Amino acid sequence: MSRADRFLKACRREAVDCTPVWMMRQAGRYLPEYREIRAKHTFLEMCKTPELAAEVTVQPVRRYEIDAAIIFADILLPLEPMGIGLEFAKGEGPVIHNPVRSLADVQKLKPVDSARQIGYLMTAIKLVQKELNGKVPLIGFSGAPFTLASYMIEGGGSRNYEHAKAMMFAEPKAWHKLMEHLTGVIINYLDAQIDAGVQVVQLFDSWVGALGPIDYREFVLPHQKNVIAGVKKTVPLIHFAHGASHLLEMVAEAGGDVIGLDWRCNLDEAWKRVGHHKGVQGNIDPISLFGTKEFIRKRTKDILDRAGNRNGHIMNLGHGILQQTPPDHAAEFINATHELSKR
Amino acid sequence: MSRADRFLKACRREAVDCTPVWMMRQAGRYLPEYREIRAKHTFLEMCKTPELAAEVTVQPVRRYEIDAAIIFADILLPLEPMGIGLEFAKGEGPVIHNPVRSLADVQKLKPVDSARQIGYLMTAIKLVQKELNGKVPLIGFSGAPFTLASYMIEGGGSRNYEHAKAMMFAEPKAWHKLMEHLTGVIINYLDAQIDAGVQVVQLFDSWVGALGPIDYREFVLPHQKNVIAGVKKTVPLIHFAHGASHLLEMVAEAGGDVIGLDWRCNLDEAWKRVGHHKGVQGNIDPISLFGTKEFIRKRTKDILDRAGNRNGHIMNLGHGILQQTPPDHAAEFINATHELSKR
Repeated sequence: MSRADRFLKACRREAVDCTPVWMMRQAGRYLPEYREIRAKHTFLEMCKTPELAAEVTVQPVRRYEIDAAIIFADILLPLEPMGIGLEFAKGEGPVIHNPVRSLADVQKLKPVDSARQIGYLMTAIKLVQKELNGKVPLIGFSGAPFTLASYMIEGGGSRNYEHAKAMMFAEPKAWHKLMEHLTGVIINYLDAQIDAGVQVVQLFDSWVGALGPIDYREFVLPHQKNVIAGVKKTVPLIHFAHGASHLLEMVAEAGGDVIGLDWRCNLDEAWKRVGHHKGVQGNIDPISLFGTKEFIRKRTKDILDRAGNRNGHIMNLGHGILQQTPPDHAAEFINATHELSKR
Repeated sequence: MSRADRFLKACRREAVDCTPVWMMRQAGRYLPEYREIRAKHTFLEMCKTPELAAEVTVQPVRRYEIDAAIIFADILLPLEPMGIGLEFAKGEGPVIHNPVRSLADVQKLKPVDSARQIGYLMTAIKLVQKELNGKVPLIGFSGAPFTLASYMIEGGGSRNYEHAKAMMFAEPKAWHKLMEHLTGVIINYLDAQIDAGVQVVQLFDSWVGALGPIDYREFVLPHQKNVIAGVKKTVPLIHFAHGASHLLEMVAEAGGDVIGLDWRCNLDEAWKRVGHHKGVQGNIDPISLFGTKEFIRKRTKDILDRAGNRNGHIMNLGHGILQQTPPDHAAEFINATHELSKR
């Protein structure tokens, strides 16, 4: 079995020769070859220049024995065509100058024609596929409705999500309208990526862990279901909600062929809660890679033991790889996964 | 039954006339009478001037029908006598100029004689008790070992706790030495508060939710047990770990008469996991108070319904009250708790 098959087979819960592995944010600043390009371009320039986006997407595939590539992009790219002014301030992350705070703001949002308005990403996908030439599959992705909504309402990152939650709790009509709008945008965005050639899509709900179960059920779950039901069924979908191990049953209920797990759960128990009719992806703490190589191997083995060679496990970090990660420690994690999971 | 009894009875799982309620960070910036004092003094000045600390401690008891006061203090106060330079930079939260990053740094830390070195807090406790005159009980508190360690290692707040986790994973000896040192400091600090007259103590593990179950068990649980076993048994202890609903069984295993719950769990299921032989405290999302009064009442009722008038529930927010909370919305929460839980 080659690197080309392993990941897709695991997504479909078919037998594999060893556990496939990739890393969230693997095209990123921990790699010197990435930083070299980043030094000459802004982050948004890199996203919007297909040649640059394609190059950094392929970099980790060259360096590591990873089993999938993920297209280089930012989850906030669909905001601009909706009419949201987006900027990446130095060292501060995304800044939105006209946050969405009322029903009137929501009603001003535009629908998005991703194939045309985010065409640079579709071009990048085609360039990557040409370069990869079947070596490993390519993953496309989008932020999930809650995560996009929270950025749009807060105007950037947030600790408490008080504006987003205040809209939920005090103006539920505006909230649901916004989620409905985002549902359409996300379906269109993922479908366009599938049309451009990605072989798997992942939905990132990076911040939904801020919600309690009662609020996830009322304010997120119906929309999340609509997104997942609406996306083309021609490729597998991975549904990852970070910091949301308390919501796992509902995340699985919302849908997805594979459910992403962060590190705040034991994989065996989590998979039982998800249901063995779905795959799972994860769940090592990204900061484990700051430990010694022996430690990395120990933690990798623990997760593999909990997965027990059951079909449908994809190894991954529980969140994006951190900038300060030593690249050879990432290699240790990837190689240990393959070696320790040989069937 | 008066306000004087309700909270202490609930801590001991005895019958009450209605569910007692207080709010974490209730002596805080959402109150205009607090902001008036804060405008004239720095945060640390307020902590270190017993008259000011006592005044803001009592303010919410005057304004609301709450059932307990909590001494005004910062969880980082024991850092200075350990030899850590602490500063509260404007709008940035705590900044530590000499973070602890190695075994050598840990070995330099001093033990703390709280009664003498944090004597200003003990004086404040005595002033508050004089002013309260038995109206409601007074709670003392401390940060838990992980939370204090993470501040000391990171040098302030953190998103990922990479330095703290890196020490755990790469230098476990230094980590355990630090936790052992903090265990002694925390026991001494809580005992001094009990001697000064607090009737309940709460251990805040604000950031431990960043850990997965495997790391909590190895790097935190043994120390947490030692702290709780070591504190004087003359008053009830509330053990609150924020963002840690995935660790709830182990938090309960570590100890405490009452286990604090944030909003990332349903109270009925969480109480079952904790065990009904312990009380529980919480679990409304603090940002629920940004909703309409009808919404606040609905969410309060949901929690009370899940508690089902079982002895041992203390109503509280799932984390500190936010600065932007309308004070009359806090009143709605407090009054709704009493009204909707009348036995």
